[in-house]
Amino acid sequence: MEFSSKLLEKAVNEMAQLPGIGKRTALRLVLHLLKQPKDQTRFLTQALMAMREEIKLCKSCHNISDAEVCDICQNPKRNHHIICIVEDVRDVMAIENTNQFKGVYHVLGGKISPIDGVGPSQLTINSLVDKVKQGDVEELIFALSPTMEGDTTNFYIFKQIKDYPIKTSTIARGIAVGDELEYADEVTLGRSILNRVPFENSLKNT
Amino acid sequence: MEFSSKLLEKAVNEMAQLPGIGKRTALRLVLHLLKQPKDQTRFLTQALMAMREEIKLCKSCHNISDAEVCDICQNPKRNHHIICIVEDVRDVMAIENTNQFKGVYHVLGGKISPIDGVGPSQLTINSLVDKVKQGDVEELIFALSPTMEGDTTNFYIFKQIKDYPIKTSTIARGIAVGDELEYADEVTLGRSILNRVPFENSLKNT
Repeated sequence: MEFSSKLLEKAVNEMAQLPGIGKRTALRLVLHLLKQPKDQTRFLTQALMAMREEIKLCKSCHNISDAEVCDICQNPKRNHHIICIVEDVRDVMAIENTNQFKGVYHVLGGKISPIDGVGPSQLTINSLVDKVKQGDVEELIFALSPTMEGDTTNFYIFKQIKDYPIKTSTIARGIAVGDELEYADEVTLGRSILNRVPFENSLKNT
Repeated sequence: MEFSSKLLEKAVNEMAQLPGIGKRTALRLVLHLLKQPKDQTRFLTQALMAMREEIKLCKSCHNISDAEVCDICQNPKRNHHIICIVEDVRDVMAIENTNQFKGVYHVLGGKISPIDGVGPSQLTINSLVDKVKQGDVEELIFALSPTMEGDTTNFYIFKQIKDYPIKTSTIARGIAVGDELEYADEVTLGRSILNRVPFENSLKNT
């Protein structure tokens, strides 16, 4: 790409560093900002910079937070003895949206993935194991994505806490609500038969 | 979407103002910035702000430029009597990439489009007509996209300059190089037959 302006070129190149944003898309976005009032660019850049400089990770659950301890961990109405283990803040948001979980979270910050150079020490696993050792935990819910990395991470954590007298569970795998049975993959369908639930349960929360 | 942090929410909302970026994509981009060193966010925001504050439009062709007059308009090797009319800077970049055009450009800044509230006065048409009136122009090449709005804009400009002794042309429409004839739409194929060129010409620039 030949740019008529170094300023434009630099802005496009920086924008194209973002994942999934190619040079053409970056150019489209940057030209859009040029057509808008200067305030839009100012608000965008200030919001990004403020977020990057000031955001914290909750000391307890490692979720993204504005304060030292996040709202969920501060909430006395939540059950602090049931901990749901998730990969990142998006999973917390997804589960919170369901309004079905009244415990607290533990955000690992990723999954064990040797290919991506992520080992257990880069995740917040030690802090989770400490919570279990302190005896405050009744149940750990494993809610990582059902991928190879997710399963590896689950197993790595499970090995370290299996001797403590706590309940462990994983979120249920099965046919998504509204999905056609015939299009489900066989592993999912198989698990959903093995882990079938009493019929009365299926009437809850509907 | 329920955010655990106001700072995160604000950054996502500003990011989602960009065209084609939904809230989910915005969240993904913003979380990516959080995982990167602070410098990446700093460079991105500084580049965007510098561009928005300092970029100029060339006084002559209205293309995006770092200086009062852009590099192309300043270049003595270019033919300043042949002007190619384009919609925006991306078209200039596309034509420059071909290395086939040695004239200069006139960037309209859009197309006449009543639906989008864009009238002739918002475009740089007057400044183009002034150039023609001053007698410096030998040829005008219309290179807008072949859409309804493009054709309207072409015709609007043509009406105002048709009494001046200049050559006018449009870029050739036809079958794209490498395309299969049978898949071409009939209007394009029809035009490519009507505007056929001497066989020797097709051997150039290959």
